[in-house]
Amino acid sequence: MSGMWGNKLQISIFGESHGEAVGVTVCGLPAGLVIDDGFIKSELLRRAGGHDKFSTTRLEADEYRFVSGVFGGRASGSPICCVIPNTNTRSTDYDKIKNTVRPSHADFAAHVKYGGFNDYRGGGHFSGRVTAALVIAGALAKLYLKEKGVTVDGRVVTEDLDEKILAAKARLDSVGGVVEVVANGLPAGIGNPFFDSVESVLAHLLFSIPGVKGIEFGAGFALADMTGSEANDPFAVEDGRVVTKTNNSGGVNGGITNGMPVVVRAAFRPTPSIALSQQTVDIAAMENVTYAIHGRHDPCIARRAVVVAESAVAIGLAELY
Amino acid sequence: MSGMWGNKLQISIFGESHGEAVGVTVCGLPAGLVIDDGFIKSELLRRAGGHDKFSTTRLEADEYRFVSGVFGGRASGSPICCVIPNTNTRSTDYDKIKNTVRPSHADFAAHVKYGGFNDYRGGGHFSGRVTAALVIAGALAKLYLKEKGVTVDGRVVTEDLDEKILAAKARLDSVGGVVEVVANGLPAGIGNPFFDSVESVLAHLLFSIPGVKGIEFGAGFALADMTGSEANDPFAVEDGRVVTKTNNSGGVNGGITNGMPVVVRAAFRPTPSIALSQQTVDIAAMENVTYAIHGRHDPCIARRAVVVAESAVAIGLAELY
Amino acid sequence: MSGMWGNKLQISIFGESHGEAVGVTVCGLPAGLVIDDGFIKSELLRRAGGHDKFSTTRLEADEYRFVSGVFGGRASGSPICCVIPNTNTRSTDYDKIKNTVRPSHADFAAHVKYGGFNDYRGGGHFSGRVTAALVIAGALAKLYLKEKGVTVDGRVVTEDLDEKILAAKARLDSVGGVVEVVANGLPAGIGNPFFDSVESVLAHLLFSIPGVKGIEFGAGFALADMTGSEANDPFAVEDGRVVTKTNNSGGVNGGITNGMPVVVRAAFRPTPSIALSQQTVDIAAMENVTYAIHGRHDPCIARRAVVVAESAVAIGLAELY
Amino acid sequence: MSGMWGNKLQISIFGESHGEAVGVTVCGLPAGLVIDDGFIKSELLRRAGGHDKFSTTRLEADEYRFVSGVFGGRASGSPICCVIPNTNTRSTDYDKIKNTVRPSHADFAAHVKYGGFNDYRGGGHFSGRVTAALVIAGALAKLYLKEKGVTVDGRVVTEDLDEKILAAKARLDSVGGVVEVVANGLPAGIGNPFFDSVESVLAHLLFSIPGVKGIEFGAGFALADMTGSEANDPFAVEDGRVVTKTNNSGGVNGGITNGMPVVVRAAFRPTPSIALSQQTVDIAAMENVTYAIHGRHDPCIARRAVVVAESAVAIGLAELY
Repeated sequence: MSGMWGNKLQISIFGESHGEAVGVTVCGLPAGLVIDDGFIKSELLRRAGGHDKFSTTRLEADEYRFVSGVFGGRASGSPICCVIPNTNTRSTDYDKIKNTVRPSHADFAAHVKYGGFNDYRGGGHFSGRVTAALVIAGALAKLYLKEKGVTVDGRVVTEDLDEKILAAKARLDSVGGVVEVVANGLPAGIGNPFFDSVESVLAHLLFSIPGVKGIEFGAGFALADMTGSEANDPFAVEDGRVVTKTNNSGGVNGGITNGMPVVVRAAFRPTPSIALSQQTVDIAAMENVTYAIHGRHDPCIARRAVVVAESAVAIGLAELY
Repeated sequence: MSGMWGNKLQISIFGESHGEAVGVTVCGLPAGLVIDDGFIKSELLRRAGGHDKFSTTRLEADEYRFVSGVFGGRASGSPICCVIPNTNTRSTDYDKIKNTVRPSHADFAAHVKYGGFNDYRGGGHFSGRVTAALVIAGALAKLYLKEKGVTVDGRVVTEDLDEKILAAKARLDSVGGVVEVVANGLPAGIGNPFFDSVESVLAHLLFSIPGVKGIEFGAGFALADMTGSEANDPFAVEDGRVVTKTNNSGGVNGGITNGMPVVVRAAFRPTPSIALSQQTVDIAAMENVTYAIHGRHDPCIARRAVVVAESAVAIGLAELY
Repeated sequence: MSGMWGNKLQISIFGESHGEAVGVTVCGLPAGLVIDDGFIKSELLRRAGGHDKFSTTRLEADEYRFVSGVFGGRASGSPICCVIPNTNTRSTDYDKIKNTVRPSHADFAAHVKYGGFNDYRGGGHFSGRVTAALVIAGALAKLYLKEKGVTVDGRVVTEDLDEKILAAKARLDSVGGVVEVVANGLPAGIGNPFFDSVESVLAHLLFSIPGVKGIEFGAGFALADMTGSEANDPFAVEDGRVVTKTNNSGGVNGGITNGMPVVVRAAFRPTPSIALSQQTVDIAAMENVTYAIHGRHDPCIARRAVVVAESAVAIGLAELY
Repeated sequence: MSGMWGNKLQISIFGESHGEAVGVTVCGLPAGLVIDDGFIKSELLRRAGGHDKFSTTRLEADEYRFVSGVFGGRASGSPICCVIPNTNTRSTDYDKIKNTVRPSHADFAAHVKYGGFNDYRGGGHFSGRVTAALVIAGALAKLYLKEKGVTVDGRVVTEDLDEKILAAKARLDSVGGVVEVVANGLPAGIGNPFFDSVESVLAHLLFSIPGVKGIEFGAGFALADMTGSEANDPFAVEDGRVVTKTNNSGGVNGGITNGMPVVVRAAFRPTPSIALSQQTVDIAAMENVTYAIHGRHDPCIARRAVVVAESAVAIGLAELY
């Protein structure tokens, strides 16, 4: 429960924002899989901030190290543990907020759950920092899927996001966004009815990503306003293969892939850390207080989260495939 | 994988639309829990069709029988198996569609996955009929949650649904809808970061329900268009208790309940079975064909699915609590 | 927890000795597997009592019924639920023992665990009766393994068991026994290091059988008294294949099959139900009492348990293979 | 599968004998649990070799480092990851055995399973070295159990083990042994019937330890030769509490604790690495060869394994309790 996931491809994550390291252990990848370091580095770089005017100025080096499971540049078949040491942390930024729970952050819920023993610095285990570990696992899953001819690609689909980000940044505010991930190359027949439907498995992982508050497949919520004759995807034979003329189902029928691209969208809430003054509570004094969050924060997590969402999808598909 | 779910509250479903029975086994409920038959019956009745002009004319008796785990009207602590015999099935309705895969149904995906050995009659295990078993498990979960002061209530939130249904019915078409479920009475501190976040667990179960294509918590997809200052839920002390002034987070921060109502919405696609003519494929002949689905089908599954969505939420919360 | 098991081949058991039925749901068998009813019946018959002078006079009909997952005589790919109705139960035999906990039975432990709400009649869910459900699952697993060329055969290896049974029966006493199960035809490479070693998985299932108190692989406990030079199994090339000259390891090295027969033995305790007078406690009065168990009981469960132990092994190997 | 285990107390191990490190991630320990470093160190020291004439001369420093989940000396509630760097490894010792599979080692089975991509140096992930990670997890579990008044203590019960070890060492041979572990302080009512019986859970973990080939509870295999009247443990009231006069059941009835000490014994095979000449196979050449294993090896693993067996028992009981 909580830090481990999966049956065939198992992952176990660990780490806190201001602890020694974050990391992940991955079991179930086939022995012999080539561990492409260049690819893993490039995936981590897509997640890292500090590279342009749209993101935080906190520069994360994201040096990682496989401490097990890789032998001669390939998966050995044993659990692969990867550690990403934390650097460039400024714990003093967070000491004063110990009792001032940040709105829409996990501070309050975690304080109650863990009886005040949780590492509150920088959100601790709830920090987006931990998603670097997901990206490692996702990169490994992508390498596995690639061998099977499956690609997983994402992008932000929120309109005018760049302008919104710059405007929000100027106002000391933040904005949300929607990330769409498309998996191509999956054959029909992957997934299950009921508890391990493709949608269930991918949503389970995507909702694990901090900040995700909605998930939809294919036409998603728009389907609620359609009629059956509009929504249904007609089957047709094309080049000797069964395809659908539209893809409102997002490539999944009855929890199982139908051979069309799997299309999923994740709604990311705006970064809850904003420098604007907010109303909250000092839970030690049990008093209402006003609070403005300082520190280096992204005005929008959706953009950096593209690779994280892809990683969740890749992990889920590797589990099912 | 597939038919079983859960760690603390475990469920195992079985059954096909036109087989002998559907049913469910539930493990993990506390011994001594009073099994309120009247409540279970009323929940099944909410799911059953045939009761008004908005739903199918197929009348489902939904007589159920506990074959184990109930002793003297209470949970005995052993696995509770409940069987709901199928009655009133007309298998001949479905024989002709064996090779004509219905658009946006599981027929094609299941045929590929199971190599043609699946029970295709009435959708087999993919039929909405199997959700009667989920409702039994959900009713048991609700009885458990009720003892802890937690209620789970749902409703359709799609605008003008009644008129849309009647209009669609007249056109031999169908419509979708959105179901909202609210859980009240949960304390702060339930759930986990990452893989067993409240959102992950509830979405996993909700996406198991046939026809669900989107899930959102709190303000959900609308959060993507908000700024942080709009989206953040300010904390405040009220009656000596920490509350939030708004509930855009849907009662969950960092995967953990914050003590506010848990609010989740599920988008249901329109019933894919429509009597209008559709384009599809005969997979034996690998030929394009035109096909109109006859039989007794609901013009809208969202309404009957309210209690199914509540059941999924109740099962998930019972697992976490 | 408790009534469900497995990842790839999942089973969920239910039922009590004097309830309506016992049964099992099995997920994960390949669609198309021929469900050989004659074989299943013969397996159940091996477990059933009443057939000779060595076992109980309680005749169990063991009529079973697949209520789902079988279509046209084959596995459909959906969960297979099998129900075995209870017949020939005499609940009045057990009413008086409600508070008189039987020595080395689960009565006391279950009473504490379930707060007195458990179905105490005939041991309820703890009854050997429930192993009929395991035999169904085991028979299905054997059918699956047979297609892969794997056989699972067991026998009692306790010396002079027949004489011991007849002598014990005459004294109103009971005896234990050791069952050995051998799996032939497994290739090298099945199983895992650590938590899913072949030994771990098989022992987990075998220790689920009521009455099993010891498990050993290959030379087992005798290995503790051997030297390495005696215990080690020399490898050799034979007919172009790597074999071992001895099989003290029971076909498993490092948790993984080495291609030799997997050999496991299970020690069954004597039937705890004996007609001799015993000292025990009335847990309602909290008083020491003397008690003799009446009713129809086997003087030795080991013999009937052979097919149950085979079933556990077959389920475990099907999970791993 | 394989490297991860558990539902409530989850562990994930990683590492190879000659890689950078071994380690473990533990989820599910209560936040606030004091992490007693002195105790953990002393447990690792019990496992480490090189301290007396009975064990290997390879000195293992076993310096460990918590990289997550510990905050202010206590469990924070997040996953606890502990890394134990490998030092003092001599990889050249093992290069020549790449294709010479050592009898009763995992070399051959692992080679087949992993297609030759496994890290063969020093047994890789199959090395007893990895049990250091189990000891860390076990020490944490013991700290948790101690707060509940439960102790877990083990010892070697093999007769004349010291003399046997010295004799075997002189002959360049090795010996096996039996370890008994006793858990005191468990209340009645812990554990489950069938798949999560106390015996199933503890045996699953104990059989994960390299070299374990047999497990028995209470009188174990001796029960097979007893009569029911000898084997049954009479209940009695003592000091207002129900106890048993004997403990042939090893504290477990029907898979559930009965309040008496839980007693389990594990049979360890002799160390398979011996300096005597052995017959084996060169799997590259597919030729029979003669081979003597050099390097620093324990003549008996049972003694050092006492703390490992205790750890497995403690982890299992923490999961169940």
